Amino acid sequence: MTDTVQAPLVGLVMGSRSDWETMQHAAARLEALGIAHEVRVVSAHRTPDVLFDYAATAAGRGLRAIIAGAGGAAHLPGMLAAKTAVPVLGVPVQSKALNGMDSLLSIVQMPAGVPVATFAIGNPGATNAALFAAAMLAADHADVAAALDAFRARQTAEVAGSDDPRQ
Amino acid sequence: MTDTVQAPLVGLVMGSRSDWETMQHAAARLEALGIAHEVRVVSAHRTPDVLFDYAATAAGRGLRAIIAGAGGAAHLPGMLAAKTAVPVLGVPVQSKALNGMDSLLSIVQMPAGVPVATFAIGNPGATNAALFAAAMLAADHADVAAALDAFRARQTAEVAGSDDPRQ
Amino acid sequence: MTDTVQAPLVGLVMGSRSDWETMQHAAARLEALGIAHEVRVVSAHRTPDVLFDYAATAAGRGLRAIIAGAGGAAHLPGMLAAKTAVPVLGVPVQSKALNGMDSLLSIVQMPAGVPVATFAIGNPGATNAALFAAAMLAADHADVAAALDAFRARQTAEVAGSDDPRQ
Amino acid sequence: MTDTVQAPLVGLVMGSRSDWETMQHAAARLEALGIAHEVRVVSAHRTPDVLFDYAATAAGRGLRAIIAGAGGAAHLPGMLAAKTAVPVLGVPVQSKALNGMDSLLSIVQMPAGVPVATFAIGNPGATNAALFAAAMLAADHADVAAALDAFRARQTAEVAGSDDPRQ
Amino acid sequence: MTDTVQAPLVGLVMGSRSDWETMQHAAARLEALGIAHEVRVVSAHRTPDVLFDYAATAAGRGLRAIIAGAGGAAHLPGMLAAKTAVPVLGVPVQSKALNGMDSLLSIVQMPAGVPVATFAIGNPGATNAALFAAAMLAADHADVAAALDAFRARQTAEVAGSDDPRQ
Amino acid sequence: MTDTVQAPLVGLVMGSRSDWETMQHAAARLEALGIAHEVRVVSAHRTPDVLFDYAATAAGRGLRAIIAGAGGAAHLPGMLAAKTAVPVLGVPVQSKALNGMDSLLSIVQMPAGVPVATFAIGNPGATNAALFAAAMLAADHADVAAALDAFRARQTAEVAGSDDPRQ
Amino acid sequence: MTDTVQAPLVGLVMGSRSDWETMQHAAARLEALGIAHEVRVVSAHRTPDVLFDYAATAAGRGLRAIIAGAGGAAHLPGMLAAKTAVPVLGVPVQSKALNGMDSLLSIVQMPAGVPVATFAIGNPGATNAALFAAAMLAADHADVAAALDAFRARQTAEVAGSDDPRQ
Amino acid sequence: MTDTVQAPLVGLVMGSRSDWETMQHAAARLEALGIAHEVRVVSAHRTPDVLFDYAATAAGRGLRAIIAGAGGAAHLPGMLAAKTAVPVLGVPVQSKALNGMDSLLSIVQMPAGVPVATFAIGNPGATNAALFAAAMLAADHADVAAALDAFRARQTAEVAGSDDPRQ
Repeated sequence: MTDTVQAPLVGLVMGSRSDWETMQHAAARLEALGIAHEVRVVSAHRTPDVLFDYAATAAGRGLRAIIAGAGGAAHLPGMLAAKTAVPVLGVPVQSKALNGMDSLLSIVQMPAGVPVATFAIGNPGATNAALFAAAMLAADHADVAAALDAFRARQTAEVAGSDDPRQ
Repeated sequence: MTDTVQAPLVGLVMGSRSDWETMQHAAARLEALGIAHEVRVVSAHRTPDVLFDYAATAAGRGLRAIIAGAGGAAHLPGMLAAKTAVPVLGVPVQSKALNGMDSLLSIVQMPAGVPVATFAIGNPGATNAALFAAAMLAADHADVAAALDAFRARQTAEVAGSDDPRQ
Repeated sequence: MTDTVQAPLVGLVMGSRSDWETMQHAAARLEALGIAHEVRVVSAHRTPDVLFDYAATAAGRGLRAIIAGAGGAAHLPGMLAAKTAVPVLGVPVQSKALNGMDSLLSIVQMPAGVPVATFAIGNPGATNAALFAAAMLAADHADVAAALDAFRARQTAEVAGSDDPRQ
Repeated sequence: MTDTVQAPLVGLVMGSRSDWETMQHAAARLEALGIAHEVRVVSAHRTPDVLFDYAATAAGRGLRAIIAGAGGAAHLPGMLAAKTAVPVLGVPVQSKALNGMDSLLSIVQMPAGVPVATFAIGNPGATNAALFAAAMLAADHADVAAALDAFRARQTAEVAGSDDPRQ
Repeated sequence: MTDTVQAPLVGLVMGSRSDWETMQHAAARLEALGIAHEVRVVSAHRTPDVLFDYAATAAGRGLRAIIAGAGGAAHLPGMLAAKTAVPVLGVPVQSKALNGMDSLLSIVQMPAGVPVATFAIGNPGATNAALFAAAMLAADHADVAAALDAFRARQTAEVAGSDDPRQ
Repeated sequence: MTDTVQAPLVGLVMGSRSDWETMQHAAARLEALGIAHEVRVVSAHRTPDVLFDYAATAAGRGLRAIIAGAGGAAHLPGMLAAKTAVPVLGVPVQSKALNGMDSLLSIVQMPAGVPVATFAIGNPGATNAALFAAAMLAADHADVAAALDAFRARQTAEVAGSDDPRQ
Repeated sequence: MTDTVQAPLVGLVMGSRSDWETMQHAAARLEALGIAHEVRVVSAHRTPDVLFDYAATAAGRGLRAIIAGAGGAAHLPGMLAAKTAVPVLGVPVQSKALNGMDSLLSIVQMPAGVPVATFAIGNPGATNAALFAAAMLAADHADVAAALDAFRARQTAEVAGSDDPRQ
Repeated sequence: MTDTVQAPLVGLVMGSRSDWETMQHAAARLEALGIAHEVRVVSAHRTPDVLFDYAATAAGRGLRAIIAGAGGAAHLPGMLAAKTAVPVLGVPVQSKALNGMDSLLSIVQMPAGVPVATFAIGNPGATNAALFAAAMLAADHADVAAALDAFRARQTAEVAGSDDPRQ
């Protein structure tokens, strides 16, 4: 789960260290698909300047997508999208009181003009953001395309090959 | 409803021109209370650099409070609060699909460390943010204190003096 | 708002004709950005075979993204994503009774393994899905990148240049 | 809880193995009522072709009802109903973040034209889907009718005969 | 839209006259499919004895299904199901304050033991309850089966044959 | 709809004049049942002292019930109940942004120790609060009991006697 | 916590034995206030005839109030109120999936004409229903009035006398 | 965490002792920032007279802000605000059944005229209310301003200096 020596294609950021429990599922999936990525805690509220700098340099550093996870009043994905044209994929982290409904609405309800691609609350969303980043990269990266196809074929085979839940 | 020649004590900002329909209620109340203020459209998503600059210079320009209205994935109040220690008062503007529930949660559910004082969805929230700013200023500004007291006494008298709804 | 003679890069589909009122905002944005696209009504529930065929042939026909709008129990985006590795962008159409909350949850809460990138309920979501598709294409299409940059610069300038909501 | 040697009258399917914890309550009730049934994991998103095949062959294989359980963006019941005229009974499985509200809305809010009969979230819904299937079959199957009548009489007697909760 | 001279196979009941605006969509669909039915206002709260009598005599009068529409604290479908083993199909009527979310939960969240098959809020739910009743009857009524097949084929053809929403 | 010369048995209060549109349904029902009552606007937030005085004198003035309607952060019913042992009946007035869900939760979710009997959002709740007050009074007031019985019989007869919604 | 030898003034009923965990708080409060009461499990869905009989005989047996607790699609309070003019106090029991929001809406959203006085979800609601019944009885039962006054004074004294939460 | 010998600048009140688990986070933050404060349990419903007295004397005793935490039908912050012009900061305590959504709406949805500055549900809200009080005081209290600046710098440094969540 370490960064590869290749320049990262995907930036994986989150609003606080506690979000790692969720976002590691994105990292694991990127790793499994062989996609070079970097991992950072960047807080929209506590380190806004770092956030702006991160976003402003994203394209220049070769990032093709940013996966951003945050919970509650989750402003990280939207503010990244405000500062870069690199596609931002938002993951609503499940919050304590409202189970992530606040996170989801804070991320998905962006106004017209600045999109954030939003995924499911919690672990499934983290995994799916990684898979979506892979699908975006597949057009230009044959190895990612192949890894993604293999993943999809495998998960289909797993269900199809063992479809009696009583065993 | 124009800005006064005095240096403004309160900054009134909103995410888009369409928020003015709501936020004018804050401006009208500040005006009525004789509080010098400025009014600006500052979009967290479309003009993030303006937002950062606005917040970074707020204290130096003498602002004692910032009232920020926004709807949907409403990031403006929280990002202002991330960039300035000047108290930020957030007003959730009523959104089209979700009636402002998204705006409310995006503003109020800030993580520990960066507070936004949040008020009701829509017009009542805008009015109340202005009244709250007045209450904050009252400690140092006797004229505002007097105006606020008069307002409160008047609204009490209005209800008490005409309490038969059938007339 | 007609399809271009170029092979379409983006497929724009929706669950019923009534969704066009929302999804035309995606079409208009694609058009404005010069992105070749096709427009179809494909109903997950009424024409499931067409849906499967559409998804199965999407990659081969050169589609780089599918924008799918649907309301209520909105299964169209998720089922497209089940049948193709081409990135699917889901737009929750505002529904009559529940204001699109049903549409949103039906689209965004995909299980781990099959991602749908979800955008805001209604018109903003449709516009943003188009902008996101442009951001995805920008890496390989310099003209789209330029058009997208111009759009972003223009919307920033519009806010910054006219930031007094009282005028 | 095994399938009977009779040709199954009811198909019991679910989106993932983890749904079995809920859906076993449907299986147990069918078993207790003596209704021949089959049990399968069929994933709308991971095995869409299996789903289509399952639905397309349901009537020919003699199924009189399909009970389908799924959680989150629960597309299984609706897509089955899109592909077969055999009545589909949907059971919203309780999801982790949103407690099954997403599952419920994804299943029940079907557009006019393709019905899914929906039951309560979680175990009660699974039990009731089985009872409803029995009620449907009762018209043509005297043994099912008798078993269902006996079940209803028994549950009434159990409450009526022991109605002091303090004992 | 009048009752046929045949003994009705489906009972269509609703909690108040105002529900007819919704439930007429069920009646129209039953009519179009040639299914003999009766239509009654039966209020769980204002005419509970009528409700009990209606349910108690439903099987004996030959009803094969009861479609029950109600709004708010919608108790009609559940209480019918408590008093008869004839399958009850519940339609949540859209309520004024809560848009039918109260109606939906009051109908769908039945406890284990007494099922109500629930459909979407409002008109789509009324239509679909009728279609579901048809699907139930199809096993024993070849004419209904044929009419239902024709309906499904026609709605598929209508979408497939006119799939450009811009025309 | 005027107060009777008898000492009022029921106090009907509301948080603002705009609540009269809803609360007049309570007044009309009390009037129709011949229950002496008084009508006042008492604002928990704008006239708290009046509220306290009203509650403190309620028992002494012979009130047997207080019907209190309020919207949004509806504190009137609960604060009345805090200051008097006279039964308080709360009516959640439908609010602009959140359709009365805020009103309902603010009234019904009282902590253990201080009850408020809560009724439906809006007009039905206002009518029902009056009917409930009548049912409370019926034990000691034979005329109210008779009027209530007559009302209930009439509404049953109205439904039962005209139960075809198509006419 | 046993029934007294006096004829009960309050009937305490609940939809299932599992509701006792909540409703025992009502029983304990009635007991502490010296109010004769009876306790029964009466299921709207599993024993509808018992429910009807219970309600129909309530007034004749001298009941002055019925406290009814139920969860999920909670029809017990409303159906009791449909069958008797004795005041019905509804307690929404906290449900598993939806935390009692379904119970609350099923009880409180009664249509105009048949009121149910509704209290908070879960234990506080059960306690408060008992206190409200006491307040209703206090007009005619001096001992209950005295017990209720003592209870209220005691709970006020307990808070006032120990108001430092750090000790 | 004891009160300082200085006259308190901030009053920290809560509706019940159980709220201390949440509100101690406000106390701890005030303590850490060196802000003199007092801590009291004041129940809107059980000790309304204490509440009124507390609010009425707040300004005279030198309080510059009142932080009020409450859960469920949370009336404490709003009623304080009704009785004093001292700024009231409301903290919605997470409730058992509805996770604090009831607390939040009861506090934030105040009508125009009487503002309550509302913060996030639970611990983050308690912490942030204290930070906001500090920001209000900073204008007149250089030591508080310095402490607040130090706190903000420290939390920024903590994130920035340790931004790899995998370590």
